[in-house]
This record gives sequence, C-alpha cells and structure tokens, in this order.
Amino acid sequence: MKKYLMLLGPNLNMVGIREKSIYGAQTAESINDDVKRYASDRGVEVEIFQSNSEGALIDKIHSSLGTYDGVIINAGAYTHYSYAIRDAIAAVKPVPFIEVHMSNIHSREEFRHNSVIAAECVGQIAGFGKNVYILAIEALLMM
Amino acid sequence: MKKYLMLLGPNLNMVGIREKSIYGAQTAESINDDVKRYASDRGVEVEIFQSNSEGALIDKIHSSLGTYDGVIINAGAYTHYSYAIRDAIAAVKPVPFIEVHMSNIHSREEFRHNSVIAAECVGQIAGFGKNVYILAIEALLMM
Amino acid sequence: MKKYLMLLGPNLNMVGIREKSIYGAQTAESINDDVKRYASDRGVEVEIFQSNSEGALIDKIHSSLGTYDGVIINAGAYTHYSYAIRDAIAAVKPVPFIEVHMSNIHSREEFRHNSVIAAECVGQIAGFGKNVYILAIEALLMM
Amino acid sequence: MKKYLMLLGPNLNMVGIREKSIYGAQTAESINDDVKRYASDRGVEVEIFQSNSEGALIDKIHSSLGTYDGVIINAGAYTHYSYAIRDAIAAVKPVPFIEVHMSNIHSREEFRHNSVIAAECVGQIAGFGKNVYILAIEALLMM
Amino acid sequence: MKKYLMLLGPNLNMVGIREKSIYGAQTAESINDDVKRYASDRGVEVEIFQSNSEGALIDKIHSSLGTYDGVIINAGAYTHYSYAIRDAIAAVKPVPFIEVHMSNIHSREEFRHNSVIAAECVGQIAGFGKNVYILAIEALLMM
Amino acid sequence: MKKYLMLLGPNLNMVGIREKSIYGAQTAESINDDVKRYASDRGVEVEIFQSNSEGALIDKIHSSLGTYDGVIINAGAYTHYSYAIRDAIAAVKPVPFIEVHMSNIHSREEFRHNSVIAAECVGQIAGFGKNVYILAIEALLMM
Amino acid sequence: MKKYLMLLGPNLNMVGIREKSIYGAQTAESINDDVKRYASDRGVEVEIFQSNSEGALIDKIHSSLGTYDGVIINAGAYTHYSYAIRDAIAAVKPVPFIEVHMSNIHSREEFRHNSVIAAECVGQIAGFGKNVYILAIEALLMM
Amino acid sequence: MKKYLMLLGPNLNMVGIREKSIYGAQTAESINDDVKRYASDRGVEVEIFQSNSEGALIDKIHSSLGTYDGVIINAGAYTHYSYAIRDAIAAVKPVPFIEVHMSNIHSREEFRHNSVIAAECVGQIAGFGKNVYILAIEALLMM
Amino acid sequence: MKKYLMLLGPNLNMVGIREKSIYGAQTAESINDDVKRYASDRGVEVEIFQSNSEGALIDKIHSSLGTYDGVIINAGAYTHYSYAIRDAIAAVKPVPFIEVHMSNIHSREEFRHNSVIAAECVGQIAGFGKNVYILAIEALLMM
Amino acid sequence: MKKYLMLLGPNLNMVGIREKSIYGAQTAESINDDVKRYASDRGVEVEIFQSNSEGALIDKIHSSLGTYDGVIINAGAYTHYSYAIRDAIAAVKPVPFIEVHMSNIHSREEFRHNSVIAAECVGQIAGFGKNVYILAIEALLMM
Amino acid sequence: MKKYLMLLGPNLNMVGIREKSIYGAQTAESINDDVKRYASDRGVEVEIFQSNSEGALIDKIHSSLGTYDGVIINAGAYTHYSYAIRDAIAAVKPVPFIEVHMSNIHSREEFRHNSVIAAECVGQIAGFGKNVYILAIEALLMM
Amino acid sequence: MKKYLMLLGPNLNMVGIREKSIYGAQTAESINDDVKRYASDRGVEVEIFQSNSEGALIDKIHSSLGTYDGVIINAGAYTHYSYAIRDAIAAVKPVPFIEVHMSNIHSREEFRHNSVIAAECVGQIAGFGKNVYILAIEALLMM
Repeated sequence: MKKYLMLLGPNLNMVGIREKSIYGAQTAESINDDVKRYASDRGVEVEIFQSNSEGALIDKIHSSLGTYDGVIINAGAYTHYSYAIRDAIAAVKPVPFIEVHMSNIHSREEFRHNSVIAAECVGQIAGFGKNVYILAIEALLMM
Repeated sequence: MKKYLMLLGPNLNMVGIREKSIYGAQTAESINDDVKRYASDRGVEVEIFQSNSEGALIDKIHSSLGTYDGVIINAGAYTHYSYAIRDAIAAVKPVPFIEVHMSNIHSREEFRHNSVIAAECVGQIAGFGKNVYILAIEALLMM
Repeated sequence: MKKYLMLLGPNLNMVGIREKSIYGAQTAESINDDVKRYASDRGVEVEIFQSNSEGALIDKIHSSLGTYDGVIINAGAYTHYSYAIRDAIAAVKPVPFIEVHMSNIHSREEFRHNSVIAAECVGQIAGFGKNVYILAIEALLMM
Repeated sequence: MKKYLMLLGPNLNMVGIREKSIYGAQTAESINDDVKRYASDRGVEVEIFQSNSEGALIDKIHSSLGTYDGVIINAGAYTHYSYAIRDAIAAVKPVPFIEVHMSNIHSREEFRHNSVIAAECVGQIAGFGKNVYILAIEALLMM
Repeated sequence: MKKYLMLLGPNLNMVGIREKSIYGAQTAESINDDVKRYASDRGVEVEIFQSNSEGALIDKIHSSLGTYDGVIINAGAYTHYSYAIRDAIAAVKPVPFIEVHMSNIHSREEFRHNSVIAAECVGQIAGFGKNVYILAIEALLMM
Repeated sequence: MKKYLMLLGPNLNMVGIREKSIYGAQTAESINDDVKRYASDRGVEVEIFQSNSEGALIDKIHSSLGTYDGVIINAGAYTHYSYAIRDAIAAVKPVPFIEVHMSNIHSREEFRHNSVIAAECVGQIAGFGKNVYILAIEALLMM
Repeated sequence: MKKYLMLLGPNLNMVGIREKSIYGAQTAESINDDVKRYASDRGVEVEIFQSNSEGALIDKIHSSLGTYDGVIINAGAYTHYSYAIRDAIAAVKPVPFIEVHMSNIHSREEFRHNSVIAAECVGQIAGFGKNVYILAIEALLMM
Repeated sequence: MKKYLMLLGPNLNMVGIREKSIYGAQTAESINDDVKRYASDRGVEVEIFQSNSEGALIDKIHSSLGTYDGVIINAGAYTHYSYAIRDAIAAVKPVPFIEVHMSNIHSREEFRHNSVIAAECVGQIAGFGKNVYILAIEALLMM
Repeated sequence: MKKYLMLLGPNLNMVGIREKSIYGAQTAESINDDVKRYASDRGVEVEIFQSNSEGALIDKIHSSLGTYDGVIINAGAYTHYSYAIRDAIAAVKPVPFIEVHMSNIHSREEFRHNSVIAAECVGQIAGFGKNVYILAIEALLMM
Repeated sequence: MKKYLMLLGPNLNMVGIREKSIYGAQTAESINDDVKRYASDRGVEVEIFQSNSEGALIDKIHSSLGTYDGVIINAGAYTHYSYAIRDAIAAVKPVPFIEVHMSNIHSREEFRHNSVIAAECVGQIAGFGKNVYILAIEALLMM
Repeated sequence: MKKYLMLLGPNLNMVGIREKSIYGAQTAESINDDVKRYASDRGVEVEIFQSNSEGALIDKIHSSLGTYDGVIINAGAYTHYSYAIRDAIAAVKPVPFIEVHMSNIHSREEFRHNSVIAAECVGQIAGFGKNVYILAIEALLMM
Repeated sequence: MKKYLMLLGPNLNMVGIREKSIYGAQTAESINDDVKRYASDRGVEVEIFQSNSEGALIDKIHSSLGTYDGVIINAGAYTHYSYAIRDAIAAVKPVPFIEVHMSNIHSREEFRHNSVIAAECVGQIAGFGKNVYILAIEALLMM
C-alpha cells in the first residue's frame, strides 16, 4: 500500500478560522479528514503533518526518505523565501514532491507570485481550494 | 453532458517530435486521443484546438462564452507575454480557465517562471507531462 | 472628403459584453455606429477595422499609406508589448496615428502603464470611454 | 454656465519663448486667449492660473471644490514627481481633472514617460500642442 | 514650559473634507484643537503650522532652532521625495523631529512605503489617526 | 481588565548585553519590568513572550485570538523577511497589532528599511528605545 | 542541391518604402531578387517567405524540418519578445538557424539590443544592410 | 561690465550654522561677501539670490534671460529631483548655467550622486567648499 | 585549552546522503569525527552543533558569549536570508565567527551568491569540501 | 591592395588549448594561417594582432587611422566592459570595425550577452567558429 | 615651487583628431602646452602623463606619493569602471586628486553619468573643454 | 617539490603603505617573505608575481599551465569587473585557483561584494589579513 505525506506549513492550521474569503470556511481538521478518506478510497495512506516551524518542516522532509512514496507540500508563506526547505527537498531526491496552494497565488500580492521551492518539486497545483490536495494524490498515483 | 475546451498554444503541435527530453516521446495526436478517451470515460466531451497564432487563440477564447463549461489552456510561450490572451480570458468571465504546463516551468529558463495569464485563471497545474490535461479535467469536474 | 481609419486591437470586439465596470455596457457595434455618425456629421469618413491578430493589424497599418488621412489606434493589450506594431506605425510615416484607450490605463494594473507604441504616435487620448474615439477625430481635424 | 479651471504648472509661462521646436512659437498669452475664446464659443467660462510653485498649485486645486465643474491640468515637470499634487487632486474628488501635455511626453526623455498624477485624473490628452486644452474642454463637455 | 511645533505638510488642511475613509471625518481644525488641549493638559505649548509649500515648510523648520523643544512633522506627500526637507531637518540638529502619519502608509500605494526624511528624524509613529500627534507629544515628553 | 501581549522576536533577549550603542544598556529583563509596571499603573495587564524561533512566534500569535485585546510586536530581524509572521497576524484579525522597533530602522542598514509585516498591523512606532513599548500601550488604549 | 529558407518577419515587406535612412532605398522585392540570384550562383536554392503574423512564421518554421538545409531568419521586431518563435526554432533542431538584422540593432533603441531568439540560433549577423542575407548564405555553406 | 547670478537653493542659508563638518564654519553671509569681493576684483558684478522655494528659484531663473551673462547654481537638494528647475534652465537657453556643490556629492549618500539638472548645464564644479563659487566665476569668464 | 563551536545549519545533517556530486560521499558523522580529531591534534576542543531550526541556531549563538573562543558557522541556506542569524552574530561580539561553505557557492545558483551574514563575520572560507572546517580552525588559531 | 587588421583580445591566444568544447581544437596559429590564406586568395592583406592588454589594444586601434581599410575585432571579454575600447573605435572613425565572436555569446553566461562596443561598430558576426573572421572579410569587401 | 601631475587616460591622446564636435579641434599637444604655460605663469610646474593602459596609470598614481602636491586626473572611459584606479587614488592619500572631464558627461550616454573614482577625489570639474585643466590648477592652488 | 604561484593584482604593492586600517602596517615585501618562509617549511616553493596591469596578470595566468601546481590569486579591484581574468583562469583548467582577499570584502563598499572570477576558482578565503595566503597554501596542500 502506497504511503504519502501531506506536509502543511505555517498558518495552515488556521484554515477555516482565518481569512475565509480566501481559504473557505471548512476547518483544517475537516479538510484533513476529507483528504484522508479520499486517499483511503483510492487505496493510499496519507499522513498529515502541520507545523509553523521551518526547522520542524525540514526535519519531517528528511524523514521522508524510505518512508513515503511521495510528498504533497503546501509550504504556506515559507514558499516564498525558505531556501532551507528547498534544499531539504533536494536532499531527499528521488522522493517526488508536489507543491500545492489552496488559493491562486498569482492573483494575490506580488510577493506570493514567486516560489523558491518550485524548481525542486515535480510540479505545482494551485487555486482549487482543498481540492489541490486531492488532485496532488491523483498526480502522484499517475506517476 | 459537460463540454470542455482544451486550448493549445504555439509549438504544442510539435510535442513528441520536438525536445523529447522535456515533453516526452508521445505525439500530440496520441496525447489528444488519450485525453479525449479519459474525458469520455468521465462523461465529459473535450474539444481540442491548437494554433500557433495569438489571434486565433483569442478568437477561440471569445467563442467559449456559452459554449464550454470550462477551458484547459496550455498557452505555450504566449504564457509569458501575451497580455492579449490574458484580457481575452478576463473578457469571457465567468467561464473557468485552468492554466496547464506539461513541464515544470520553474526548473527551466528564467523567462518561463512568470505567467501573465495566471491571475485571470482559476488555478494552475504544471509539471506532470500529459497528465496535466487529465488533472485539469478532474479539477473542472470538482468545481 | 477626409478618410480616417479606426483600428481596434484584441478583445475590443468584446466591449459591452466584457468587463462592463471598466468599458461600459454599450456594445462595440453600437459604439462604432456612434463614431461613424459623429464623423459623418463632421464631414469625415471613418472606416473601422477590428482584429485580434497582431499580423492582421500590421497588414492593415501598412495599407494606410495613401489611403487614410489619419489613424485612430486602440491597440488593446498589444499596446504594452507589440514592438512589431510600433515598427508598422513608423513604416507608414507621415500618416498620423493617435493612440487611444477607453479606460484610464494609469489607474489599472502596472503592466498597462507603459505603451511601446506611444513614441511613434502623434499623441494619446485615454480615459473618456467611447469619447476617446470622438476626441481623436477632433484632434485629427485640428491638425 | 459651466466654469472650468485651466491649471498650468512650472515653465508653462515660457511657452513661445522657450524651446520652440517642442512647444511652438505661439506665446502663452496668445494660447490662453485662443482657449478662452474657444470656450466662450462653446458656452463655457475658463479661468487660467499659472504658477511655478508647487504649493500655489496645490492651494489652487483645493479651491476648485464647489467652484469649478472641471479642471484641465498641465502640471509641467511636476507631473513626474509631485505626489503632493496627486494627493491634492484626490482631495477634491469628485471634481474631474484632465491631465494634458502639449508635447508627446513618450517620445522625449525617459523621465517624462511616467506621470505620478495620472491615476487620480479622469483621463489624459497629450501631443497635440495647444489643441490639448481645447480637446480637454470637449472631453469635459462630453462627460 | 516646553514648546513644540506641529508641522503639517501638503493637503493636511483637507483632512475631514478629503478621503474620509482614510483620514476620518474630523476636520483639521477640530483635530488641531484636540491636540492643543491635550498638550495644554500635559503642560506643553504646541504651535501648529500648515503649508502646502515645500519652501515655507523649510523656512519654518529653520526657525525651530532655539525656538522649539521638539517638532512633530507630518510632511504629507513630501515625505516621499523632499530631500530638501530632509536636509532642513539635518540643518537644525539637535532639535528632535518625530515623523508621523495618520494612516498606515505601509498598507497603501507602493510609493508611500518609503520616507526620505525618516533617517534624519528620531523616530516614526504611523497609523493611529489623529492620535499620532498625541503619541508624538508623549514621545517628546519621555525623551 | 484589558490584557495585551508584548511579543519579542529574535535577539531581543540580548538587549542590554548586545550592541549597547544602538539598544542602550538597560537589560531586557529590566525593560520588561518597567513596561509591566507602567501597564499596571494604566490598569492593563501585559504578558511578555520572547522567542528566537519564527515558528514559536507564529504559534503565540495564533493563541492571541480571544485571549488578548491587542498585541505589541517587535519582530526583530524577522520584520524584514518573515511573510509567515505576516500571514499569522492576518489570520487572527481583528486582534490589533502594533509594530514597534527600539531603534530608528530607517537610519540603519538598507535591509532594515522594509517591513513585510507592516501592512497587516494597525500602525508602527519606532526609534524611541524602550519607550516604544509604552507608547504602543498608549496607542492601544486610545483605540 | 541545397535548399535554404529565408524567413522575414513583420514590416520587412516595407523595406525600401519605410525608414530609408535605416534600411536603404532598395525595395524588398529587389533585395529578394539579388539574394536569390546570389544563391543561385553559389548553387543553392533559396525560398523567401515574409509574414507579419507570428503564427504564420511559426507554422513556416515547423515546416522546415526535412525540407530546408538551413534557415536565415530576420524576425523583425518579434526578435525582441517572441518566445514562441524561439520555441519553434528549438522544436526543429537540428535545422540550423542564422539570425540576421539589416541594421546594427545595438546602435538603435534600447529595446532592440536584446534578442530572445539568439540563444536557439547558431549565430548572428547584423548591420550590413541587405548583405546580411548573403553573408548568412556563406555562413550556412561553410558549416 | 559682466553680470552673473549666483543662485542658492534650499538650506544654503544655513551654511556655517548647519553640519559644519560638511560645509565648514564660515557663514553664508560671509561667503557671499567673499564671492562678491572676488568677482568685483575680476571686474564682474555678482548678484546673489537664495530661496528655499522651488517656485521662487524657477521664477528667478526665468528672469535671467537678458539680465545675466551667466548663472552659478547650487540647487541644494533640489539638484536630485527638481525636473522643474531643469526645465527652467532649458527654457532660458542660451544663458550658461554652471552647477556647483560645496561638498563632494559623490562621497556622500547614494541619493546625492545623481543630478537631474546636470544635463542642461554647461558644466559642474563640486567639492571645493566655498571655492566652487569662485571657480565658477573663472569658468564663466573663460567662456 | 581553546574551545571552538562548529555550528551547522539546515540540511547539513544530510551531507553524504544528499547531493553527493556537490557535497561528497563522506557522511556528516564521519566528517565531524575527522574535524574533532584534527582539532584535538592541534590542541583545540571543538563542539559540533547541528540544527535545522533558525531559532535553535540563534539560541546556540547567544550561548557562545564566554563559552567559546571562536565559532565556525556553516549556516546552510539560512546564509542567504537569515538576518536574524546575522543579528545574533552581532549580538555576541567580540566572539569571532568564520563563515564556511563546503561548495563554491559562487558557481551555483544565483541566490547562493549573496550572504547576509558575511558582513558580521571575520572572514569566509568556501569551496574546499570538508576541509573548510579544518582551514577555519587554522584561521582561528592564527588570530 | 586592401589591408585589414584582425584584432584579437584577451585569451584568444589560448584558442585550441583552452575550452575546446566552446572554441574548437584548432590552434590560434593555425586559424590565423587559414584566415591569412583566405584573405590572400581574395586579394586582401590581413595583419593579425593579439594582446591581453586593454591599453595595447587601444594603441593598436589608434594606429589604424590611415593604415587599414577595415578592422575585424574580437575583443574577447573586454567586449563586455571596456568602454575605453569603445571610445578608441569612435576615435578612429571612419575606419569600419566589425565585431566578431567565435561562439554564440547569447547562449552562454548572462554577462556575455551585452557588448559595450557594438554601438560603435558597423555590424556583428557571431557563432560560426573561425569562420566569423572569414565572413567579416567578406563583409568588409562588400562595403 | 609646487608640482602637479596631470594624468590623462585612454584616448585622450586623440583629442583634436577624434570626435571634434565633442572635444574641439585643438590637438592634445597644443592643449598640453597651454596648460603648462598657464601653470608656469601661476608659478606651478605641471607634468603631463598620458597612457591608454590602466596598469600604467596606476603605476603613475603610486609614484605621486611624495612627488606631486596634487593630481589632476582625466581618466577617460576608465572613469566609469576602473575600481583599480579608484583604489590607487585611495592608496596615495593624502595626495589630493581632482577629477576632470572636458565634456559634460551628464548630457552624453547613460554609462558616462557614473564615476567610480569620484568618491576618492577631492572634487570634480566637468564640461568646460580644455579649461577644466586650468580650473583644476586654480582649485589646487586654493586648497 | 610542489610549486605554487601567488598572483597579486592592482595596488597590492601598496599594502603596508596604503590604508593601514584595512590592510595592516606590514609591508608587501615583508608579507611576501613570511609567505615564502611558511611555504618552504611546508615543502612548497611559492613564486610571487605582482602587477597593476590586467594584461600582465592574464599573461602570467596563461604561463601557469604546466608550470604551477596551483595558483593563489588576490586580484585586487579587478576581482569585481575583470571578465578577462575570469576567462584566463578558465583557459588554464585544470590548474586550481584559490581566490583570496586580505579584508572581509562583504563588510566594505557594495561594489566589493561581487566577484566575477569566483565561479572559475576552486574556492575563496577572505578576511584574515596576510593569513589568507597561508591558508590558501594549506588548502592547496589538502587537495
């Protein structure tokens, strides 16, 4: 059975509480349940890990070598400046990483248009709300 | 029955012939067949239109109002400078557009990192080869 | 009798349909009629040509040599990157070109603030909705 | 009877004396007379105010609230850096301001290509010599 | 008894009239009265001087040497480009200047994010509406 | 009784030990005591939390929803690049945040001139040494 | 017998009519005849194709695979922004492309100094008027 | 007898009072006397005009046509952004202007390195303290 | 006996596992042993601390005051954006810090060319693989 | 008999020894012989001068006035920053200079894309290996 | 008797031959004679040294320590990029250097507007043709 | 016996004479002696070559092929712009070059932060005064 890691960065624990016009009103917990159920239906196990700490996210990325068949990463705002996370992704090659964003980062503030981790990921999926996690599972399954 | 348009920009007719290390060896025609078959299995009709002409692509975008339930657009290199295509997408709101790229544009040349059409699309899917078309169909179906 | 060309670029066929908060609700056809009527009252013949194709616009510009006494050009989004249209205008000197925009391009997105064709035109008129076409006729008549 | 203010910024008192290849040989006084006469024929009163002082121009703009039905502003070189004039225009909303320039600022030095007041004006008219004042009157009348 | 100067730059006479969503509906005069009363309660005399003229503001700054124990400066839009005001502040060292802004300049247009006078002031207070003047009095008293 | 959080970022535990010419010789502990005493005199409870970890600061910001009536944040060097802290502040709206800096960041190195969190705060107070904390308490009380 | 394509972009049909101080007074047709005659003398067949349409140029480039032994391209103003033409050239590798310009693009406007297609061509020849076509034939023959 | 204007911009009345480490301890009045005496010995009359107002400086520049044989201008901080003063100098051609600065502006802050008026002056003299005025008189005499 | 701290930032625990073409195949542990043995032979004690957390690295830097005679820091990707680490180094002056990098950061991606901590360190050693640690020990011993 | 100078800048003596994948394996001497023989066949004398010294190259350029009918210059890396060589070329007008590069400088490092001497040359030929010298001879002969 | 060095950089030997519209028709030799004669009349000995070699200019600058009472330097195009000459001037402090340019470098090409040596010189004199050398002698004498 | 070249660029002959606060008071000769003695003790011969001429430095670099086992290069200010020296280093691959700087170039002027030769060297050592030469010898010995 395939095992994927869904890695959530800073402030993603506040989804459903925070800025609902951008992220929707469904809570983080509820989204996590939906994703796990979907994955289970597709015969995949998904572990979900959220942290606001850059260091903890890097530690978790390192642990993915030999543990997960793929990683879905929503690095939150770290997406835009954490070269350390970028290096962590490069360090666990060949584990495939898929970068996701719930909102369309290109129609928001200028600083959100650039991702420093994109070059080390397999691909990107952005703008479909919680469905980005489900589409990323599909993308991993197709690989 | 839902009807989607898959809009392919410049040089995408050369996929399978051109730069196989980037785009793979499967020909454009064969990919189109795969996408149509997949869509059909999902109960959706997909029309595919390819053109190297910016004007023809804009004309086609205009025609989507009232005709298609969604558009999957791979604008090729026009992605990076065609503000005219961006305006065309804005002009047919609320038809949802999904921007796709077969390759991971963020691990290629600098000029490919920026998309001038992204802000007017619902979301982006990039880096999964021909599967980006299939994932975009799924994304449209989930909306 | 003087003869002017009114040259409309990409997406201007969608005026009245598209983004009404910016361009107003009057359709492109209706605006064209108004402009022609106004011109006729002023003893001028105005031909109107719209195309979404950069090449077709250039072809039309070339044809203005010896045919039109002046050209009113709303190049749409091509305004911001079509150096080819700029060169076309330079190529038919001394036919006078007046650059117009229905909206105030300076209060919109950053990329709309710069015009690459401005330096080759006689002048610019922007921000007065459909009246920019009428003011341009007046400007040509005063020359 | 409508009443418009024609506001002239630094060095515009030198028109006709200064740089004739750019601004023509007609003196500022003579142009003012032409504009007033034209306005009068159109049933409009135009007051003309010229100053080289940024502060005096701002004072005058403030006075336009409740006094003028529209303002035609040629801010001279202040166009390119006076955020204070920009704020003054914003402060007297909803009085409509039309930005004019006698020369085509886009075919001159780089620093003249950007207007910091444009975003707060209704529109712009540039490049038609003294006729920009007359076209601006027409533009105001059409609103 | 301590004596402070409250120096107000361009357009600040329009507060309460202008852009009420940004600056509130209380008029400049009424704010001035509130500030003077507050200062008086704290045993300080505050003189208030407003001008739209850069030169008049500089003249007033020069006069502060030996006259005022501190200056509260809201330079309005001059904040963003008046190196002459910056030099004037440097010229009257060691009179302490506190830069204030009623609105949060960092959540407004890009050009308002930079202050050319900040480096020569003791500190900055921004974003608290009319209270920035009162907080600046407190800041001066604490020095 | 009102309850405020005073949130201190990286290296602020070294105040009084470190770079005394910039931050003064009073230790962090002693400043904290002064601030708490001042607050207490004003009938406000202030909790002080210092961490060098971006993640810990974000966790603490999240906890402020429903706990504090206002937050005084000196984010230290994170001010200049932590978009994750910016997002955290946005996530707990409408809790008011006041950004403070002990030194005048505008007369120091270039990189300190820009704050990425400023746009999500109510206002800024900088340059008055330890008094910025006291002024921020006053600012919160005035709201 | 070798067969080369000479591909001419926007406005190059206006050579001899347009901007003679830059491009000379010899008409496009006459130059074409000279080039064909020269090629013929060198035992090479040259086909000449001119279009103002980016799409048509791309279509023609695609057709070169298996048809031409080399392509001489003067992309006119498209040189400076058509990443789509760049991609088309890359798509027909290994057909050798030589980029030519009649004028010295480096002594003209800033925007003409950069070529986005240069990196995908074998080499560049610029500044020798119509002789650039003849030198490009020689260059192809020497390969 | 030749007549020169020595035009002094903002804050130059504070020389000798202000920032003595940069401008020296001799007062503005005393320097003016020295310059006048030197000029007189060289058979030249020098009028000195100082103002902190951009508008007043422009008015004075306009008056130089037909009145002065040359102008020595130290525009103070206006040097770095007053395009209005630049235009004023251009407007009174052919009166020769010499730009002077008492300090070496190139070894000071970055913003002082650029002069927007330099291109319209005959030449520049900077860095020799009060002697720049005397050297400028010599330069005018040599012309 | 001298005591040095060798401080390793994010992902440096993955050396020998990760990107061997850049960092070599020797594991982090083995390198650490080599460095300690070398130091011991030179009569120096070296403590090694690795963390992926910016906050933990800052905490450790703070602890160096009065504990270590010198610090060798390889801040990994934090080198390029952690102004907080820069401030931490400044906060423990006069402890000497030496910045090291195993690879030649100047022949890699653009973003690796800039170090924000360099200005607060004594010097830099880069490009010699694990030997940078040994050379840094020598550099500290020579001071 | 015509006489041309072939001027070779820094490191071009290392061709054939250095970076063969870029410049080929034929030695500089052998290329020089080929060029001279070709020129001789075309009835032209070519003198070849190579130096690694910017000053020596400038001296040689000065000597070309009245001595050579044309100069072929491969300035090596000086191409990208030697404004002194640019001025030297301008100083010997009307001697025609042709700028050549053996490699396609546009498909190499960013810094090689810009030539500071191009604007003062007649034209450029790049990318054809040693044939650029031969094509330059042809170009000079055609002038 | 005072002894000054007049140091002339690249291409200044071509004055009078080269670009006469910029530098005048008087030859370098004749100007040198005029300067020496003028200096002699003022009781100063001037040695003149011209070289096109950056290294030779640096050697000469080094020799000025203890030999010359001042140096007048016209570094030609090296002005704009030779940080090595800048360092050489710094290395012979306190010998005073005066930077001169015959033309007004600010009304010429963009690249001539910046001087990398200015910050290490006492002052600058530009734009007065050969008189800049004479004015520099006066400036040195006044120090 | 190994043989290394120590290559010193412009102004390094002035060490000990020049700017002692940056480079120390030990003369260049004395440093050279120390380095040679150290090398000798380590069983290595070091030749030292200093020149202020870019061309001479390039000539010397070319001579290193087959002569030296490694080169220690302190290119002085050429470090920041000499692409010609960069190419020279590339031309003698595989001779290893180590870039050194006596001062910490990152805590000095902005222009000193970038090295154009770094990418072609094995590594960099900076900031340890004369010890950078000794550390470079150690680094070469360890390779």
